[in-house]
Amino acid sequence: MRIDVLTLFPRMFEGPMGESIIGKAVEKDLLEINVHNFRDYSDNKHKQVDDYPYGGGAGMLLKVQPIYDNLKAIEQETGDQQKRVILLDPAGKPFNQKMAEEFANEEQLVFICGHYEGYDERIRTLVTDEVSLGDYVLTGGELGAMVMIDATVRLLPEVLGNQTSAKTDSHSTGLLEHPQYTRPAEFNGLSVPEVLTNGHHRLIEEWQLKESLRRTYLRRPDMLAQVDLTPEMSKLLTEIKHEEQE
Amino acid sequence: MRIDVLTLFPRMFEGPMGESIIGKAVEKDLLEINVHNFRDYSDNKHKQVDDYPYGGGAGMLLKVQPIYDNLKAIEQETGDQQKRVILLDPAGKPFNQKMAEEFANEEQLVFICGHYEGYDERIRTLVTDEVSLGDYVLTGGELGAMVMIDATVRLLPEVLGNQTSAKTDSHSTGLLEHPQYTRPAEFNGLSVPEVLTNGHHRLIEEWQLKESLRRTYLRRPDMLAQVDLTPEMSKLLTEIKHEEQE
Repeated sequence: MRIDVLTLFPRMFEGPMGESIIGKAVEKDLLEINVHNFRDYSDNKHKQVDDYPYGGGAGMLLKVQPIYDNLKAIEQETGDQQKRVILLDPAGKPFNQKMAEEFANEEQLVFICGHYEGYDERIRTLVTDEVSLGDYVLTGGELGAMVMIDATVRLLPEVLGNQTSAKTDSHSTGLLEHPQYTRPAEFNGLSVPEVLTNGHHRLIEEWQLKESLRRTYLRRPDMLAQVDLTPEMSKLLTEIKHEEQE
Repeated sequence: MRIDVLTLFPRMFEGPMGESIIGKAVEKDLLEINVHNFRDYSDNKHKQVDDYPYGGGAGMLLKVQPIYDNLKAIEQETGDQQKRVILLDPAGKPFNQKMAEEFANEEQLVFICGHYEGYDERIRTLVTDEVSLGDYVLTGGELGAMVMIDATVRLLPEVLGNQTSAKTDSHSTGLLEHPQYTRPAEFNGLSVPEVLTNGHHRLIEEWQLKESLRRTYLRRPDMLAQVDLTPEMSKLLTEIKHEEQE
């Protein structure tokens, strides 16, 4: 996969993109990341990338020209290879796991990171997707792009060592993960549930499914409503509702 | 404000936390950020921080001891100053703008960034908040912590140069922002709407409110449902619904 990032703050990507899973994917040649400073593409002699909004208002807007020319330059390198061009914007579609799975199937992703007050509206005509990280405001799109890159790259084949990991996480199964414990068996008076230490696989699996359902029921009923319940899950859920009412 | 981050990948924070608004807040002494590697607090001679899960399963879990001791060390520095201790976790409460506003009122925030398969359940007893960045899975909590720090710090007084900026953004007013334009007046055949170039303030304001409502209506009806509509907004919304049906 090839990823291009358009930003005014390329240095922000140095730490996060070099460490952890992303760095390993680059080392293994599974991923190529190119971070561009779109200021370099400004046709203005002062390398200006922003300007005042028409109609007045606070702050500056990003101009369309430097981003347009940066995208053209990328296109000259990669030809007409199909790609997703993603605009990071609070008014975009909220990012979710399904979108990460979609992105992971693409050959090329281009992320445009805004800053200042916002984008000239015509920048939206240059992209395939407008995506928001969540319902909160950030100073720029850079962290959002890093999050989307991380969520996407970990789904690429061969990136995570343990293939089962990506599939059993919260949000991949539709349920939140059940409580988990590691050594010591007791810490500050808090013990590991007995069922986990007695080695009965069937009982452990049932406990894990039940506690996964319980956590989702208590914390994220909106997620639970999206899950196709098996007969076993329905039965456990009835028990949980009864227990939680007591 | 003082922020402490517990992580196994402190270098990830170098780029993002030095650049942009966060870096400026640190320079202006409005913010102190301490990034701790909790591996340093492991009482194991191999500095081990993770171990196998009880009951089996894929991957490793973070142990409670190193995180417990790191939190104790921070407490020794700051005394019993009231603080929020935030666990980054996909099973947490989804982060939103209201939470950023709450965090911005605190004197101290501590972020615990997980990695690997998850946390020993007893780590949850050490925190005040369990927060998720959104409904997607990341390789670790680091990027999530950076996003929450960014969303919070930009709300601190004196951090953003232009105080009006933070208040008029998407998600702060409850509506998505209206389209905005800057020079040139025409680019590749796409022109700035005439109303924005004719200087009638009242008409411009009405256009902006209407287009803000339209974008929210079309893209995020869930957000629109949360807004207390003024009579003017209701009137504009009726017009929009009529126009969009045509």
